[in-house]
Amino acid sequence: MPETFVIAQGGGPTAVINQTVAGAVMEARKRYPKARVLGALHGVRGVRDGRFITLSDLSENELRAMAATPSAALGSTRDKPDEAYCDAILKGLSKAGADAFVYIGGNDTAGTQSILAEASGGRITCIHAPKTIDNDLVENDHTPGFISAAEFIAGAFLSVDLDFRALPGIYVGIVMGRHAGFLTAAATAWQLEDDGAPHLVYVPERPFDRSRFIADIRATLERQGRCVVAMSEGVTGPDGRSLVETLVSPEMLERDQHGNIRLSGTDLARAVERMLAEDLPGRRARVDTFGYLPRGNIATVNETDAREAFEAGVFAVEAAERGGGSVALQFGGSRTECRLVPLSAVAGKTRHLPDDFLHPDESQVTGVCRDYLARLLPRKFPVAKPFV
Amino acid sequence: MPETFVIAQGGGPTAVINQTVAGAVMEARKRYPKARVLGALHGVRGVRDGRFITLSDLSENELRAMAATPSAALGSTRDKPDEAYCDAILKGLSKAGADAFVYIGGNDTAGTQSILAEASGGRITCIHAPKTIDNDLVENDHTPGFISAAEFIAGAFLSVDLDFRALPGIYVGIVMGRHAGFLTAAATAWQLEDDGAPHLVYVPERPFDRSRFIADIRATLERQGRCVVAMSEGVTGPDGRSLVETLVSPEMLERDQHGNIRLSGTDLARAVERMLAEDLPGRRARVDTFGYLPRGNIATVNETDAREAFEAGVFAVEAAERGGGSVALQFGGSRTECRLVPLSAVAGKTRHLPDDFLHPDESQVTGVCRDYLARLLPRKFPVAKPFV
Repeated sequence: MPETFVIAQGGGPTAVINQTVAGAVMEARKRYPKARVLGALHGVRGVRDGRFITLSDLSENELRAMAATPSAALGSTRDKPDEAYCDAILKGLSKAGADAFVYIGGNDTAGTQSILAEASGGRITCIHAPKTIDNDLVENDHTPGFISAAEFIAGAFLSVDLDFRALPGIYVGIVMGRHAGFLTAAATAWQLEDDGAPHLVYVPERPFDRSRFIADIRATLERQGRCVVAMSEGVTGPDGRSLVETLVSPEMLERDQHGNIRLSGTDLARAVERMLAEDLPGRRARVDTFGYLPRGNIATVNETDAREAFEAGVFAVEAAERGGGSVALQFGGSRTECRLVPLSAVAGKTRHLPDDFLHPDESQVTGVCRDYLARLLPRKFPVAKPFV
Repeated sequence: MPETFVIAQGGGPTAVINQTVAGAVMEARKRYPKARVLGALHGVRGVRDGRFITLSDLSENELRAMAATPSAALGSTRDKPDEAYCDAILKGLSKAGADAFVYIGGNDTAGTQSILAEASGGRITCIHAPKTIDNDLVENDHTPGFISAAEFIAGAFLSVDLDFRALPGIYVGIVMGRHAGFLTAAATAWQLEDDGAPHLVYVPERPFDRSRFIADIRATLERQGRCVVAMSEGVTGPDGRSLVETLVSPEMLERDQHGNIRLSGTDLARAVERMLAEDLPGRRARVDTFGYLPRGNIATVNETDAREAFEAGVFAVEAAERGGGSVALQFGGSRTECRLVPLSAVAGKTRHLPDDFLHPDESQVTGVCRDYLARLLPRKFPVAKPFV
């Protein structure tokens, strides 16, 4: 019977990651009325440095208010612990008297948990609870945080579609996503008609070719008189290098201390604007960088997403009794259920858009992808077709 | 007793411009059961080319569905008619048998109406109904379309605030607005606390100075450990030239056929990213271009905005009996009311942020501005303060 739970949040915040914390605290309180639940501030960094708050002291109302608020209430971190760091984390957990550690995050977080589970030799039960707007965790049908971010994207592209029917032109929306195109594909979730916006979708899973891109837009303009494009920040050229790297002149590229290119949506937007100006001169074109706007947007917190994130937290505490592991949201054919999978099955792995989600010949998603998105995110708003 | 109304929509679409059309059609139907109401497709261009649909044939349900849908259902135009164009418009109106012409748009639209009213010698009653997310119409307390766009901005900056408490850094959101900073100022509407995000606000009404900008950010980082900035696309340097023009190297600037600089949010975002990289090296920084996202976003259609836009359409039809003019939303001390003002009072004029809306010493808005925003846009979402 665990006496002390430690909960932490890692990686980029989402609209519903606090629901998972609330679910875990409420379930721990129910199962183990005497147990303490500590929240580590700024993820494993707070565990290492001994910075905790006592979540089990919060009232149910306080927990519900926290759950309904986007972003990570405990703070987050992007630290990727090495061996020494992991030792320090384990020391921090022992010092806090933790029997169980619930770490909410993506595949890096699962990786950290996998290392800690092994290093602790079973003294501390390690549970990974899923979270990422990128929807790129293997073993999961979808991840908490994705549906809310996808709702922002779907609504934005529906709105841009209506806007560009009124004042035709070319629109390109640059959407977060370095390796997986799920969020960009979500731009099609609320399409008004089969050939509605976004007319073209470019994701990291398919090589981007400039001449193909321009030809796609030309064809769409001829068909529709307007062209709306959804593009991932992480689209890569035929040589596998990021498009930004391929298109932006070297002296314009910003690099971090390790010499890695800082892949900024603005760099890509700028490159795309120049492509359009050069190859389609005189055409009205606008490129926007969505950036962080979809991530934890308070205007698009999705109810299903919130409920599933809460349930993932509840299940994470149940999982402590079963020796820990990674909580996975899987689709049973009728509904989404939490299942426990080994940490090693998720750690460090990236899930990509399945092949049958992407049209083989067109820069567009398939019916299989549309069905998947329709299941997660049915359209919320009735829309009257414009007269133009 | 008018027999034929013509309605058109001009300039950039908004979330509620269709409410104004619906209000006008329903009021015309009520007052003049026999009257026809025609909708011109793509503004005065449709009038000139004789492209109309019969709005009075639509059922109340069809009108309400159209009203609830963002963007301009009739299509819009950015044409600025010269004398010959205006003659063609008047011919088009006469051909359609119009006694009254309701044109929904901004100050350019009011300008067109003012020319048409004079040229038609009173044969056709010209009414301008207000619409602009920029909130830059004189004689108006605020304009239909602004509150919904402001709601998007307010929610976005509140969400970014929460995000950057979890993972501190520098964030700059570039907001539409070439000459007026109302929309950018709206970033402060839902601030969590006095010194909450956006910590800094830069608008076209105040000259932008790079060293001041960097000093502002440094001071905020020292105070808060993070810094969130709201910046207008149209910020200008001390010399009055647009910041983009001042900062971007000439060969990088895109110009249209007339040699005018294409002021793109991306150009500014790129310039700001480079400033931060050069003057605050190693700091985590992100710059996003909101662009069209706030304009007619289906996720942030504001109820007050929708109602006022509808009432502006109703009032526009009433105004036909009074010889036409420009419909203005004015604040009576307790509520917003539609009043009729001369077209010449609004035509071609730009309303700027009042001096007392902007702090004299800090890059921030004043309490007067906060009170104004709180009156238009009370916070919608309860938020629990994060633990970090």
